[in-house]
Amino acid sequence: MMKKNYLDSIQSTLLLGAGPSGVAPSTYRALSQTMLGHLDPYFLEIMEEIKKGLRQLMQTKNEVTVPLSGTGSAGMEAAFVNLVEPGDKVLVLENGVFGNRMADVASRLGAQVTKEEFEWGTPVRVERVKELLAQDHYKIVAIVHAETSTGVRNPVQEVGNLVNAAGSLYLVDAVTSLGGIPVEVDKWHADVCYSGSQKCLSCPPGASPITFSDRAMEAIHARKTKVPNWYLDMNLLTQYWGGAKRVYHHTAPISMMYALYQAVYNILDEGMENAFARHQAAHERLVKGLEELGLEMLVAPEYRLPELNCVIVPEGVDEAALRAELLEKYHIEVSSGLGPLAGKVIRIGLMGYNATFDTVDRLLDALREILKK
Amino acid sequence: MMKKNYLDSIQSTLLLGAGPSGVAPSTYRALSQTMLGHLDPYFLEIMEEIKKGLRQLMQTKNEVTVPLSGTGSAGMEAAFVNLVEPGDKVLVLENGVFGNRMADVASRLGAQVTKEEFEWGTPVRVERVKELLAQDHYKIVAIVHAETSTGVRNPVQEVGNLVNAAGSLYLVDAVTSLGGIPVEVDKWHADVCYSGSQKCLSCPPGASPITFSDRAMEAIHARKTKVPNWYLDMNLLTQYWGGAKRVYHHTAPISMMYALYQAVYNILDEGMENAFARHQAAHERLVKGLEELGLEMLVAPEYRLPELNCVIVPEGVDEAALRAELLEKYHIEVSSGLGPLAGKVIRIGLMGYNATFDTVDRLLDALREILKK
Repeated sequence: MMKKNYLDSIQSTLLLGAGPSGVAPSTYRALSQTMLGHLDPYFLEIMEEIKKGLRQLMQTKNEVTVPLSGTGSAGMEAAFVNLVEPGDKVLVLENGVFGNRMADVASRLGAQVTKEEFEWGTPVRVERVKELLAQDHYKIVAIVHAETSTGVRNPVQEVGNLVNAAGSLYLVDAVTSLGGIPVEVDKWHADVCYSGSQKCLSCPPGASPITFSDRAMEAIHARKTKVPNWYLDMNLLTQYWGGAKRVYHHTAPISMMYALYQAVYNILDEGMENAFARHQAAHERLVKGLEELGLEMLVAPEYRLPELNCVIVPEGVDEAALRAELLEKYHIEVSSGLGPLAGKVIRIGLMGYNATFDTVDRLLDALREILKK
Repeated sequence: MMKKNYLDSIQSTLLLGAGPSGVAPSTYRALSQTMLGHLDPYFLEIMEEIKKGLRQLMQTKNEVTVPLSGTGSAGMEAAFVNLVEPGDKVLVLENGVFGNRMADVASRLGAQVTKEEFEWGTPVRVERVKELLAQDHYKIVAIVHAETSTGVRNPVQEVGNLVNAAGSLYLVDAVTSLGGIPVEVDKWHADVCYSGSQKCLSCPPGASPITFSDRAMEAIHARKTKVPNWYLDMNLLTQYWGGAKRVYHHTAPISMMYALYQAVYNILDEGMENAFARHQAAHERLVKGLEELGLEMLVAPEYRLPELNCVIVPEGVDEAALRAELLEKYHIEVSSGLGPLAGKVIRIGLMGYNATFDTVDRLLDALREILKK
């Protein structure tokens, strides 16, 4: 081995799947900036800027708003492991793979999980949540804002109002929403909200922005048991990411932090509203083009995410072959369906840097050629 | 905020602390290679090459030899969380910060931890381990190969022979050793061994190579309870990193994997033995120079790590001011002491790309100027 260097022959690919998304040239440059120590005073300044930028993107005043040293899934793990103690009642509102994963994560930590299932491709029904909250008290209610497996946007504001009134902690997964559609942590009454770097932030995978409300931090401080995860313990992480004396916890992934800084910088520089409008416009152009090709969307128009488009594969089309041809001949990546949707849909991501008319047109042209055969 | 781009004014720093270490130009280039999907067939090939390369570096035939999507501390977390079930007896051989951390990590998971303490700056005593293993049976015995807080090399082979004879699982932390001194997983009878990317591999922080023996994987499969950490569950991770059907788990940190690939490539290209010899030669030159300056090493010669040099701060010297002057005036980073050694020592890392005569001389010149004042 090690004779040939595999990195020399990477083919540039247009990433229109469920993530990772395309990365802007400025963010590639950021990645390869010269390394600093994780306690270097200048790096501490960059950390402060990342925290400020994330607060703007997440629309929160939460002091504890930091990136974790892992992918979006580490964000999910951190959200639950810091708040759940054995026996705690957790209500998970599930309408896709990531809701399911939440239930699994919480169960492993000894939570008493109630998983309320809604049909995949449709949103969580607010009326049903109201009933459930009237019947029992939950320490935590968890929901996915943008369900990456189906392309559904869940009614996080309406559910948040109910959860807040019920006095539960509100846990929101914003992995696929942050940067693509508004994420309004404070307005939603979200107590914990996490995301991933590799979706609409257009940053490589490997960092997970997360925010905790004061109420959530109080719940963590009031735990009877230590957080059963040293790596993601917010009690320890906040002493490195904040406070006068920066206490060494683990070595922050410096290069990833540079990239995250630049990715956040790019969105704030463009303007969040402009970025959201760009995602929406690209989505509308995509849907129009797909419909002209006779293709149908899985999700009803009012619940669709602009950044994640679930397209039903027509009868007689082999979706694996379709994706393979897109990748091999056109160098375009789209994603397969997950779980019960495997083989039935393809998922087209228009995330961050790649949410443009040009990329949409390139994909539509390729699909037109493949499907007319 | 976001008016000035902080990344534009990063000062290049010679990283001679406890990590992160300096990164080779080829590895910076690898970081900014064009993004691929985490299920792209070509990326799967790169993953296979990383696994092969790590097996060579770790000197193991273990099938399960993969990088985790987190820093070295995530490696420690993964080692314990996969193997520990509540009530399990764990013996931690502690002679520094990282041994202490192991005991904390294991305790949080409900292990019944026996922490045997040895004087910091001295190695774990094999005779004492023999006594302990004669008195009780432990499911796991854990040790740190290269104690980053003191610069001590522990007798992992001798301890491994005893642990193997006792039928316990042997857990070895090789965060600061891999790439700098031989790590011989199979010869040591290690059942789990993990490292970090940002030490002697000269890769940015953010990836943690880990290997599990067949016996360790059997212990994981035989668990009565699910691994209480979804993100680091080896049952799930091995289905993405191996097997015919690559099952999506979390999105791998692609850019970090490129960098890790290149870092491993560089060491194998240089030759492991050559890399070890280079670390040793740089270390000897450093020690000679320090002694000429009247400085003393914390650790006795026979137990010293070449890559992590703990130097006693002379009476009357303010170590914080010394480090600050090195950083601000000479752009050289060295690290402070940790725990009971805080204020008493500085830690000089000669890791990977920076383990050269040139860097040693640059540091010695700076120290000479500062100390003669």
